[in-house]
Amino acid sequence: MPTNTRTETDSFGPIDVPADSYWGAQTERSIGNFPFGERERMPAEIVHALGYVKQAAARVNARIGGLDANLAEAIQQAAEEVARGDLDSQFPLVIWQTGSGTQSNMNANEVIAGRANEKLTGNRGGKEPVHPNDHVNKGQSSNDSFPTAMHIAAGIAVVRKLLPALNTIRTRLADQAERWDRIVKIGRTHLQDATPLTLGQEFSGYAAMIEDNIARVEAVLPRVLRLAQGGTAVGTGLNAPKGFAEAFAKEVANLTQLPFTSAPNKFAELAAHDTMVELSGVLNTIAVSLSKVANDIRLLGSGPRCGLGELKLPENEPGSSIMPGKVNPTQCEMLTMVAAQVMGNHVAVTVGGLQGHMELNVFKPLIGANVIRSINLLSIGMESFTERTLDGLEPDETRIAELMNKSLMLVTALAPEIGYDNAATIAKHAHKKGQTLKEAGLDLGLVDEETFDRVVKPGEMLGR
Amino acid sequence: MPTNTRTETDSFGPIDVPADSYWGAQTERSIGNFPFGERERMPAEIVHALGYVKQAAARVNARIGGLDANLAEAIQQAAEEVARGDLDSQFPLVIWQTGSGTQSNMNANEVIAGRANEKLTGNRGGKEPVHPNDHVNKGQSSNDSFPTAMHIAAGIAVVRKLLPALNTIRTRLADQAERWDRIVKIGRTHLQDATPLTLGQEFSGYAAMIEDNIARVEAVLPRVLRLAQGGTAVGTGLNAPKGFAEAFAKEVANLTQLPFTSAPNKFAELAAHDTMVELSGVLNTIAVSLSKVANDIRLLGSGPRCGLGELKLPENEPGSSIMPGKVNPTQCEMLTMVAAQVMGNHVAVTVGGLQGHMELNVFKPLIGANVIRSINLLSIGMESFTERTLDGLEPDETRIAELMNKSLMLVTALAPEIGYDNAATIAKHAHKKGQTLKEAGLDLGLVDEETFDRVVKPGEMLGR
Amino acid sequence: MPTNTRTETDSFGPIDVPADSYWGAQTERSIGNFPFGERERMPAEIVHALGYVKQAAARVNARIGGLDANLAEAIQQAAEEVARGDLDSQFPLVIWQTGSGTQSNMNANEVIAGRANEKLTGNRGGKEPVHPNDHVNKGQSSNDSFPTAMHIAAGIAVVRKLLPALNTIRTRLADQAERWDRIVKIGRTHLQDATPLTLGQEFSGYAAMIEDNIARVEAVLPRVLRLAQGGTAVGTGLNAPKGFAEAFAKEVANLTQLPFTSAPNKFAELAAHDTMVELSGVLNTIAVSLSKVANDIRLLGSGPRCGLGELKLPENEPGSSIMPGKVNPTQCEMLTMVAAQVMGNHVAVTVGGLQGHMELNVFKPLIGANVIRSINLLSIGMESFTERTLDGLEPDETRIAELMNKSLMLVTALAPEIGYDNAATIAKHAHKKGQTLKEAGLDLGLVDEETFDRVVKPGEMLGR
Amino acid sequence: MPTNTRTETDSFGPIDVPADSYWGAQTERSIGNFPFGERERMPAEIVHALGYVKQAAARVNARIGGLDANLAEAIQQAAEEVARGDLDSQFPLVIWQTGSGTQSNMNANEVIAGRANEKLTGNRGGKEPVHPNDHVNKGQSSNDSFPTAMHIAAGIAVVRKLLPALNTIRTRLADQAERWDRIVKIGRTHLQDATPLTLGQEFSGYAAMIEDNIARVEAVLPRVLRLAQGGTAVGTGLNAPKGFAEAFAKEVANLTQLPFTSAPNKFAELAAHDTMVELSGVLNTIAVSLSKVANDIRLLGSGPRCGLGELKLPENEPGSSIMPGKVNPTQCEMLTMVAAQVMGNHVAVTVGGLQGHMELNVFKPLIGANVIRSINLLSIGMESFTERTLDGLEPDETRIAELMNKSLMLVTALAPEIGYDNAATIAKHAHKKGQTLKEAGLDLGLVDEETFDRVVKPGEMLGR
Repeated sequence: MPTNTRTETDSFGPIDVPADSYWGAQTERSIGNFPFGERERMPAEIVHALGYVKQAAARVNARIGGLDANLAEAIQQAAEEVARGDLDSQFPLVIWQTGSGTQSNMNANEVIAGRANEKLTGNRGGKEPVHPNDHVNKGQSSNDSFPTAMHIAAGIAVVRKLLPALNTIRTRLADQAERWDRIVKIGRTHLQDATPLTLGQEFSGYAAMIEDNIARVEAVLPRVLRLAQGGTAVGTGLNAPKGFAEAFAKEVANLTQLPFTSAPNKFAELAAHDTMVELSGVLNTIAVSLSKVANDIRLLGSGPRCGLGELKLPENEPGSSIMPGKVNPTQCEMLTMVAAQVMGNHVAVTVGGLQGHMELNVFKPLIGANVIRSINLLSIGMESFTERTLDGLEPDETRIAELMNKSLMLVTALAPEIGYDNAATIAKHAHKKGQTLKEAGLDLGLVDEETFDRVVKPGEMLGR
Repeated sequence: MPTNTRTETDSFGPIDVPADSYWGAQTERSIGNFPFGERERMPAEIVHALGYVKQAAARVNARIGGLDANLAEAIQQAAEEVARGDLDSQFPLVIWQTGSGTQSNMNANEVIAGRANEKLTGNRGGKEPVHPNDHVNKGQSSNDSFPTAMHIAAGIAVVRKLLPALNTIRTRLADQAERWDRIVKIGRTHLQDATPLTLGQEFSGYAAMIEDNIARVEAVLPRVLRLAQGGTAVGTGLNAPKGFAEAFAKEVANLTQLPFTSAPNKFAELAAHDTMVELSGVLNTIAVSLSKVANDIRLLGSGPRCGLGELKLPENEPGSSIMPGKVNPTQCEMLTMVAAQVMGNHVAVTVGGLQGHMELNVFKPLIGANVIRSINLLSIGMESFTERTLDGLEPDETRIAELMNKSLMLVTALAPEIGYDNAATIAKHAHKKGQTLKEAGLDLGLVDEETFDRVVKPGEMLGR
Repeated sequence: MPTNTRTETDSFGPIDVPADSYWGAQTERSIGNFPFGERERMPAEIVHALGYVKQAAARVNARIGGLDANLAEAIQQAAEEVARGDLDSQFPLVIWQTGSGTQSNMNANEVIAGRANEKLTGNRGGKEPVHPNDHVNKGQSSNDSFPTAMHIAAGIAVVRKLLPALNTIRTRLADQAERWDRIVKIGRTHLQDATPLTLGQEFSGYAAMIEDNIARVEAVLPRVLRLAQGGTAVGTGLNAPKGFAEAFAKEVANLTQLPFTSAPNKFAELAAHDTMVELSGVLNTIAVSLSKVANDIRLLGSGPRCGLGELKLPENEPGSSIMPGKVNPTQCEMLTMVAAQVMGNHVAVTVGGLQGHMELNVFKPLIGANVIRSINLLSIGMESFTERTLDGLEPDETRIAELMNKSLMLVTALAPEIGYDNAATIAKHAHKKGQTLKEAGLDLGLVDEETFDRVVKPGEMLGR
Repeated sequence: MPTNTRTETDSFGPIDVPADSYWGAQTERSIGNFPFGERERMPAEIVHALGYVKQAAARVNARIGGLDANLAEAIQQAAEEVARGDLDSQFPLVIWQTGSGTQSNMNANEVIAGRANEKLTGNRGGKEPVHPNDHVNKGQSSNDSFPTAMHIAAGIAVVRKLLPALNTIRTRLADQAERWDRIVKIGRTHLQDATPLTLGQEFSGYAAMIEDNIARVEAVLPRVLRLAQGGTAVGTGLNAPKGFAEAFAKEVANLTQLPFTSAPNKFAELAAHDTMVELSGVLNTIAVSLSKVANDIRLLGSGPRCGLGELKLPENEPGSSIMPGKVNPTQCEMLTMVAAQVMGNHVAVTVGGLQGHMELNVFKPLIGANVIRSINLLSIGMESFTERTLDGLEPDETRIAELMNKSLMLVTALAPEIGYDNAATIAKHAHKKGQTLKEAGLDLGLVDEETFDRVVKPGEMLGR
């Protein structure tokens, strides 16, 4: 609890704020009105994006909005500090607030005004000479600024975190696909022994899945990079100068070095968040992919003696607290848990996305926070999984060969030679008697040794 | 296309209906207005439940609602035919209609009036002497009749299908828990070898899970058995005679032999469907349980030679169309697919449940249809899985013992004797050298033979 | 129950099938093993797609697979009948079967063989001269044929149903955006009165949302059009002739007139269904969009006297069974229910998609059936909603003007002129006193009449 | 970054930890292995619950487990500090770790040992005299301790937060139901004007919904209060002394003053988390209820001049940053966003719950964290909503009466008197002519004035 305070005011009247804070009355009021605590804070990525919004707006307002150049400069400097993360401690508000993100927008307006005023006057906070609404929020509304921040934050996170992480894991999987291309192993369908493939082929499937995910992300990206700014309160752009939207988008593109554009229809951008729902759907698809890959790897690495045992997983830490010597697929577990969270977040985003009313969807903070969290979880999860599991993954070639050779399913190779029904008879016979296929085939007189050896070659059953 | 038609009318005017149909104008109009086709028909269970609604209402209306006794008798006979399923072909309407289920309610009113009129006059259809609204729907509204039918249908399905199927699978699993209580096997945690347990203990966990699910269903049942009837249009009961609600619930209880009651607050029953969401949540829990059980069984049955191979699954059909001799865990696959559908249906019910507006939730057909489908899928799925997989399931005791004996994790038994760190050292040594634990322990001098043999006994590591 | 039967056989032995059926032993066995009933049948679209698969395969097998030309011709003719839907009654199997769709694939193989044999010999059914496995399924496995059918069915449904329906609704909304571009109305944010916009602008947002959805569908389409065929059992293509995959994809493209291609990595196509999950995510986004649009329209059409009343909805049927004269937004209710189902189906697809094991995902029928159902529901829903609600939708211009004129929010126009705080004071004063803005402003002396009239013009608050 | 470090060791070897930390090698390793950052920390509630676990275990171990009394006392004191939250800063680990929660369990073991050692020797950390595994974790495994902590945390949160918050909101709604029981208002079904009810009746529905939710929570609570402790690694209880489970549960019951019990089947408690899925389903139902209530209130409070306007919402903060004087339903928006998150979390829990493998479900931290977060969000959300919206909510009786009196739907009262069809005709006529019902009825000669006035009395249309 602060002992030193100063008084700030809004249309509700005066309220005390901590003397050393940059924020003002509306932020302080929101702290009291939504008591969810530190754990539920608005993601820093969205706060930083609000910094970009205010920085770009100040520059445009100075040029075409009639904002005094000195004020504009102070605003854009303060906003840059927000964008850089230098003022994160000044953003105490939580996700669960007004559904338009109004209070976080006001938090940004107040902090930037408070910091700009400090630069200009030496006194922290207040509304003079820089006013949070009249100057920092000039030409804007929470209704367009907050969704703009959501898209900026998501766009940056996609380009700087998600795509690099996808590329990291894809490259590693593709390397392994190549490296292990001659290791012939049993295939498994329905979890049952099937015809062989190489370990490299198996991993090529994983690499291809990730490659498709990269394409999915790239397909949605142009829509993510479209900004609502310029729509102001209801999408008409009332109170924003002509050309504001386009000039703003160019500034943001310049500041972030990403090709942000102005959205072609602002009504849609305020009233709905379909692109966030779409992006979340792509993240959901990635989560599904990663679940499959991580689950396969822990199945193939199960053991050490009573599982499949085809892969040896790197040891990152001691396993069980009671069972010495046991090493667990902890990165697989982390990644599948992360994936489950992303699937859940996707439903939250969907439920939020469908409930817009007329000119405004008021589930913005929910949607923004979940999309950002999902991107972070997937990105860190993939990087960690690649570094701590894939990088050290090794095939147990002895075990792979042992399983391969005792399989019954090589019988498939015989089908074109002796017919489907005869082949089935041999396999069943071997299964019942515990014999090898060859023994069974010769026993039953359904194939001769020469034919068997000529036809049943796992290394030639790879469809190449 | 019918060549013979007759003309029926509603407040919109006249419309042709097939001459041999019992339905009237509103049903015919709905066929045209919601062209989703036969596949999307309202579930028969809800149609039958509307039969009960109309039958019970006619009886009560004859007693306390001023309905002519002859008309009431004709109505209740016709309604009984609907409840029995004799007139299913007369209910062509789809799920995707008015969100109050009004058109299905009118379908029932029209068919019952049409059939009652046939009984009384020899002429099918029409509104004389029995009027669909004034007589069949007397004292009712779609807004209370349709949710009443949802609850009747769900209650019957829970009691006659779901609970019996849960009991069937629970009994079978509990039998196996007892039967296999002496088969000691390797435990697996993190898919890694762990300390032993018996196959019976493993199955006792499955049986306990199902037992809890039975308790869950029984806990929600009293709320499912509460009926909205008597609330009429908005919950006030306007136009229903005093005592209608309670007398109606007693009639339904009598007709179905299930303890249906009148809901204490009718406003809530029309405006929300929380109990359906709750029931769906219980179905979701059952689906989660069954997924785990079915997935374990296919993992334990994986092979025949390159998997875990501890269980032998019964063969119900030929497996792959290309790989002869292979038998797949098809009932496990069916059950896990069914479970996934139930989880999806649960989200549909949730999304429908949250969107009620003021006095009426208008996602009733969606909610009712999904709950009924989920109950049917789970019930049939469990019965089939029990009969076609559990009943014929057999342990491969040779394989189970083979895996048990080569496991390293029996080392846990040594920890209390020689300390955690020494035990870990032995396990790691054995793992690296491919030795048994005993060999490793003696090699390292960390344990003597007598101690090892005294301490490491799988059959005594079962915590009994 | 058929009284006339014939005997068919598979590797399990003989079994009786109805004499007039084309199907064989494996289909018959599956009917008994998965007793879910008619309501749960595999969607006809997937059956038809299996017809295309078998037709294309027969043509390719005749050219490069060594299949006898006469047999091939009989097969491809029979398969064409399946593709056309002429033999739908011969596909009794349900969704809930083997997770690879093996039994539906065998159903197609058996029916096509049975029909081809009838063409060639006059005798229905059997395995001579055309064998279901050796000839109809030649060079294929369920593991590649069934996912191929899923993609063919989805591709056709997207192109022939979903995209046309999206275009229908988009065109209508864009027309209305243009038609109603001069009707100035109150905007609403947070469900609270906000600055004005035109009804046309509001609808332009809806049109833009649908336009984006079309782009989303088009972005995923190339991946949907990629076919797994040629991978056979595990993705290696074992037992398929060289070039089979590419030749097959060309045949399908030719038969359907859609640009199907052969998937670049077959392992991924069998082991995972990420593209189906992605497509389902796009359908989920469309469902979210449509929920918003339909919900807005019923809110704007609420009344007739106690709601917002800005839109007049066409009457398609009588409304309540108890409240005469009431007309309900039934198409909105249908569409939002359909949307909720699609969101639920999406979760089912997600849960199925994440659980693939090694070389095969065994949730194929679940995934395929849900994607097809979602496409059908959305497509029919959009067409019906457009025809029965949008086409007849009319603005109530009197009501719109009445609300517009009494709004307080036009005060926003004053903020740039008299400052934010003064504008707020006027609005609050008017609100408390029940005055108009002008009255309040003059009362308070914060604005003069000339200024007010000059500045506060709804028609000039549209940001144009 | 710490400049002072000390060295700790585990079976992996030595590692530096911050000198002032209580934690040891395994915690330090986990920090490096799962770099998700502070935002993703394991919920404090679960950390505190681990404190209870260790405290109770130490007491039982001292009595029946052969743990030295001095060590036990030091352990239980240190554990009490953890339970009280005094050592929260010593728990840096994140949710996304080993799926059994092993590392958080080790974090607790290490911190408690480190703190106990400090008490006993003056030196922080280390394994002497108190060893994290041999003493603090004695008779336990992560596999039973962590799910025990999940249940303790959930049980406490349900009893101390969720149920009180449900009672708070229920009481308030029930008060309002009583207070507003004479305010007759228009009912709305399909968002269309319907027959009247009182505002109190409307709120009685909300109160009844919450009452049912309390019953739902109470029904699941006994299962939540069942503890897995005593199952150790795989459920058999190996290495735990006889009677440990029951004695432990009694200690926890004593420490928390809640009736915790020992779970009847430990295999199920480790291998599955169905009860957490069930509890999450109940939370999902509560979220659905709250969405409906909050959405109704913002609809009824929409305006101030262009909406329904029947309720006046308290002003908690300034609304829009651009539209002065506007006050938004921010608490409704918060609550519906929170509800959407809970629905998403429920899917995450479901996806985690379904993927257990054999003896262990390894989605424990995901499941525990989501359940705790959902309880917190709902509890804080309900308390805040009650205090900041319900408490200050007022009906606008003038507006309510105005709407009531111009409604057409009072015509329903005429139906029993003049017949359904005549009543419908009057309503349609009034609607087209803009007349009142009475004017229309007299015009058409379908009712006389005396009858109309006698029959059409809103206050007598309440079904009382």
